[in-house]
Amino acid sequence: MGFLDENYLLTNDTAKRLFNIIKSLPIVDAHNHSDAHEIAENENYTDIWQAEVATDHYIWELMRKRGVSETFITGTATNEEKWMKLAEIFEDLVGNPVYEWVHLDLRQRLGITELISKTTAQSIWNQAIHILQQENKRPQQILKEMSVESMCTTNDPIDLLADHKKLMDIYGKGYIRPTWRPDNAMNIFRPTWVEYVEKLGQRVEKYPLTLDDFIEALRTTHDYFAEFGCITSDHGMLIPLGFEVNKEDVEDIYERRINDEETTEEEHMLFMSYMLHEFAQMDVEKGWVMQLHIGAVRDARESLLTIIGPDSGGDISNHTVEIVDSLLDLLNSYDEKNPILDPKYRGLKVVLYCLDPSHQPTLATITRAFGKNVNLGAAWWFNDTPIGMKRQLEYISSVDLLMNYAGMVTDSRKLLSYGSRTEMFRRVLADVLGSMVEKGQIPEELAIKTAKHVCYDGPKHFFGF
Amino acid sequence: MGFLDENYLLTNDTAKRLFNIIKSLPIVDAHNHSDAHEIAENENYTDIWQAEVATDHYIWELMRKRGVSETFITGTATNEEKWMKLAEIFEDLVGNPVYEWVHLDLRQRLGITELISKTTAQSIWNQAIHILQQENKRPQQILKEMSVESMCTTNDPIDLLADHKKLMDIYGKGYIRPTWRPDNAMNIFRPTWVEYVEKLGQRVEKYPLTLDDFIEALRTTHDYFAEFGCITSDHGMLIPLGFEVNKEDVEDIYERRINDEETTEEEHMLFMSYMLHEFAQMDVEKGWVMQLHIGAVRDARESLLTIIGPDSGGDISNHTVEIVDSLLDLLNSYDEKNPILDPKYRGLKVVLYCLDPSHQPTLATITRAFGKNVNLGAAWWFNDTPIGMKRQLEYISSVDLLMNYAGMVTDSRKLLSYGSRTEMFRRVLADVLGSMVEKGQIPEELAIKTAKHVCYDGPKHFFGF
Amino acid sequence: MGFLDENYLLTNDTAKRLFNIIKSLPIVDAHNHSDAHEIAENENYTDIWQAEVATDHYIWELMRKRGVSETFITGTATNEEKWMKLAEIFEDLVGNPVYEWVHLDLRQRLGITELISKTTAQSIWNQAIHILQQENKRPQQILKEMSVESMCTTNDPIDLLADHKKLMDIYGKGYIRPTWRPDNAMNIFRPTWVEYVEKLGQRVEKYPLTLDDFIEALRTTHDYFAEFGCITSDHGMLIPLGFEVNKEDVEDIYERRINDEETTEEEHMLFMSYMLHEFAQMDVEKGWVMQLHIGAVRDARESLLTIIGPDSGGDISNHTVEIVDSLLDLLNSYDEKNPILDPKYRGLKVVLYCLDPSHQPTLATITRAFGKNVNLGAAWWFNDTPIGMKRQLEYISSVDLLMNYAGMVTDSRKLLSYGSRTEMFRRVLADVLGSMVEKGQIPEELAIKTAKHVCYDGPKHFFGF
Repeated sequence: MGFLDENYLLTNDTAKRLFNIIKSLPIVDAHNHSDAHEIAENENYTDIWQAEVATDHYIWELMRKRGVSETFITGTATNEEKWMKLAEIFEDLVGNPVYEWVHLDLRQRLGITELISKTTAQSIWNQAIHILQQENKRPQQILKEMSVESMCTTNDPIDLLADHKKLMDIYGKGYIRPTWRPDNAMNIFRPTWVEYVEKLGQRVEKYPLTLDDFIEALRTTHDYFAEFGCITSDHGMLIPLGFEVNKEDVEDIYERRINDEETTEEEHMLFMSYMLHEFAQMDVEKGWVMQLHIGAVRDARESLLTIIGPDSGGDISNHTVEIVDSLLDLLNSYDEKNPILDPKYRGLKVVLYCLDPSHQPTLATITRAFGKNVNLGAAWWFNDTPIGMKRQLEYISSVDLLMNYAGMVTDSRKLLSYGSRTEMFRRVLADVLGSMVEKGQIPEELAIKTAKHVCYDGPKHFFGF
Repeated sequence: MGFLDENYLLTNDTAKRLFNIIKSLPIVDAHNHSDAHEIAENENYTDIWQAEVATDHYIWELMRKRGVSETFITGTATNEEKWMKLAEIFEDLVGNPVYEWVHLDLRQRLGITELISKTTAQSIWNQAIHILQQENKRPQQILKEMSVESMCTTNDPIDLLADHKKLMDIYGKGYIRPTWRPDNAMNIFRPTWVEYVEKLGQRVEKYPLTLDDFIEALRTTHDYFAEFGCITSDHGMLIPLGFEVNKEDVEDIYERRINDEETTEEEHMLFMSYMLHEFAQMDVEKGWVMQLHIGAVRDARESLLTIIGPDSGGDISNHTVEIVDSLLDLLNSYDEKNPILDPKYRGLKVVLYCLDPSHQPTLATITRAFGKNVNLGAAWWFNDTPIGMKRQLEYISSVDLLMNYAGMVTDSRKLLSYGSRTEMFRRVLADVLGSMVEKGQIPEELAIKTAKHVCYDGPKHFFGF
Repeated sequence: MGFLDENYLLTNDTAKRLFNIIKSLPIVDAHNHSDAHEIAENENYTDIWQAEVATDHYIWELMRKRGVSETFITGTATNEEKWMKLAEIFEDLVGNPVYEWVHLDLRQRLGITELISKTTAQSIWNQAIHILQQENKRPQQILKEMSVESMCTTNDPIDLLADHKKLMDIYGKGYIRPTWRPDNAMNIFRPTWVEYVEKLGQRVEKYPLTLDDFIEALRTTHDYFAEFGCITSDHGMLIPLGFEVNKEDVEDIYERRINDEETTEEEHMLFMSYMLHEFAQMDVEKGWVMQLHIGAVRDARESLLTIIGPDSGGDISNHTVEIVDSLLDLLNSYDEKNPILDPKYRGLKVVLYCLDPSHQPTLATITRAFGKNVNLGAAWWFNDTPIGMKRQLEYISSVDLLMNYAGMVTDSRKLLSYGSRTEMFRRVLADVLGSMVEKGQIPEELAIKTAKHVCYDGPKHFFGF
């Protein structure tokens, strides 16, 4: 069998049939890091480095592992020089999904089938320059080519969504959607938090902000995002802080922090818990899905943070993160079955994303227990790999239900890769289901139904795409 | 290959040969939640809901995941209405072992081979009504049909075992055995604990009870259970609390708690540790096996606890539970090699059940270190699935020894399912061993010997069935 | 397929081709527990027990699991009696790698192909006696036969390396290397620590030692080891303690502990953190690799410690060990990209060994983040098994890079087993890579390159063999 041939990742005949059925389903993508501005401007990419590597810290990390100098990663070298350095070590990346994704991108987006190496570096660079200048390789055309039906970018509440507006004017409300991600408002422990509150005040033309004003301002942006087709909020949290907290205590913490007085780490956790409940309330009222990305220890490598900044490849996971108590408080407060709540209340819709595989059983048993509104998200980040997805799908299928899976998200930092990341997932899903069919665990017609649901109908309905 | 056909879960030829050898071995089941009264009364089941779903919270949880209203799960709808609702969403359960177990039950106990769906719901309901009325589908006849040689129900120490008595009169002492499970006596943190102590006092006709009386009363029930063929105690504990604790401290805690004075969480842990040592002592004296079910966070979903009560599907696992220190204290105190103990002392026999897969390495290395008396139990609850059992068997075989495995337990909440749960385990075991034979790791004749030992001879000898 | 035949552990055709290419590569082994004295003396082994079991607590543990009396394990029985007892229960060890390793040793080192059992015990004993007396079965000849190019024993800093000297005189500097393992100097919590410091003083002919003297004395031994070809330090630590600590505080702790005054557990952790930084500094200066063996809970079974002593089979792992904060402190301090350090600074080379599979994601994401100098080591101890290595390689390949893997180490406690342990690893590696080739994830020629690099070129270059 050949590299990335038609049976890539498909190890049984049923899997091949299943993949054939789901491979062309449209993409609905509830979470990624694409730039709406890039899409709205719709300019051609200048070169393969810009399109494939410039925004993707997954590749940066691997270049560092192979000893490439920072000059050729995030530094001052030209894009062509950087590409040449990457090509030199590209063969060393085998086994890591980056090797597969980038080659899939080249094949399926640019029609380049050469394998990247020192030898082919210049040739691929030259071909890509040429191809990327074509009319049909601009961002909007690429999205269409990849059958993207609807996608959610990730945005700060302050964002005025000018680019989303432009795109809405062209494509209507439900195509390029924003996601309301209030991490900057949440992360009271950051030195820049006070400054952020000030900006938020400017956004709503009110300053200074009391705690009530602060929440009201965020609600204003939440409402504003809804007008642009937003259907989900997103939250990156080491610990899913959802303790039930007294408002008076939080007001006191807020005031001291705003005034640069001392606050403790424990107080920060109280504040964050309080805010997550407020955000949950906003999401419930609009029927939005709350996405929780749990367990990332950010900026663990100090030199990268200092030299390059956040999101540059210095993040890790940690098996000892406490998840249960704080998450249960949140989920119990907004449980659809909570008898204290209005009987018509339908509950908070939540998606839990797991970073550390050792947390997966905890999160899967929680989603199993909490009914139809609390579901698991796609294998995230370090687990967004063939083996990571396979292990997740096999396990959570047996503890929870595949039919409740919140669906694949590309989590991508570049448009070019949506198709490849989606394809890798669909192949693994087909392989896992196909293998269960061949072991006599699932009738094939139900495997087909499940595969289609997981890839398209399920997330479309749960998120309300 | 067809759904649940003869090669179900068997992926290699050696596995097929192995399964053929072990499939008909009698069942010895050291742990389940069956109702001795149901067996003693031996009445026919009224319908398929009563036989398959009414007592099984595994299925309830999945119905909730698919949005079925509680009315049709634990609520006021008729059994037929509930079955119809279950059938409507049954196809959505593929991938979860419930889909396989229920169909296996239908096929092997009732001879119904149709797949459950909205279309077949009424037909299966009608057939099952008819079949379940047959003479040979009563509880005792079903147990015989499934080749159950001996099984242990789970009972509170206060239980007078009237039903076990009836069954003992018919079948002799070693068929339907009770298990001594003193969780109610142990769980001093529960509001109902004081009331329980009162009941225990009534059981032994003494009240009030001092700590010494309390322990003596429990010992009386321990002796009493022995008369009914009990060979094992069982303990559900989030943390396996076995710290060595001073008696005087525990007496003080006990007295305060009995008198409704304040006690702390830490004091509760001291009390529980003390009691576990007492229980260990009782088990050692009789040569019973102490089964420890570790790591379940009970009643995590508050609405279920409030509306329906415990054991209704709101339990989860937690990767951060501390196991080591407290468990080592217990095991070291009762170690067969402990030179401080009587040289004739044979040690406490222990089975450790693991709920969270991230705890498995801890527990497997502990059993590896502690010799022949401390062994691992079957993949438990959320892991009692083809993938859960496969991953457990592959891993613990390499760290510990399969020949020391404490054996499959059905853990079942319904009689009908003993055969299916046992069959699923035997198929996975055959597959894992067969695969090792085909990889040249084990000579086939030794795989046969091991498979038979794990399924029957091993647990029979270890528990003393 | 037959037991241990040529396709042992190779489940696909590409794997067979790959193994054929790597099987004869020389062995470079950065970590094992072999005895340099045994190699220098180069005397024939007296019998199979001495050669295979007398120094190997992996086998002792399994004998205990099968109920063999300590008399026949570490006790007073003769080697022949012990071997007979082992043979009696040897068939019960299937599934555990010991079963495979010992048979591989017999086949490949002694040419004995019989399977060990009660029946063959005497025959194998007799054959082995005969074969082990041959000239070419002496330690140095066995090392040659196994193509060991270079290996590192494990030594206390006080060791004068007389045996290494003898071997260096025969074979030159880079063949049998010492490893500087200062656990005795590090473990301030041990009752014997003060006595150890005294011995260290004697080693450098100075006493009493202040903290500065203590560090200087260790540095003297570090320099001394370098003269014998040492290229790596090694550290066994439950927690990888690398917090940044104030020297004054540590001096105070050191003085109190030396004078048998009270010190706390927390103070011990400060001392150990401080020392690890000192050791890191020494390693950086010489370009040595710092090997960190993380997460072993030593001597968990008290009776074994009391009766037999440490390293007798009573060690376990623990999923809740905190790794992140302390390890990040160390790695950030010695990061190659640390801008505070000298721009010519190349960073501390580190290998992280993972004992508990639930820690693996934490460690793999750390190595991913920290660039070329911080790499993962081989699946360790309880994971040094076909399934443990397979799961590790599949996972870390996807998170980190196989090309950065620090390579197989035998970790062996007996010379005879180097070949078998290495062969098992190479077969699993070939199988994992072969499977990825057959799934279309890696071009075969790059799988070949990767396999060779992982087995030989990679560790050779990283350690500087």
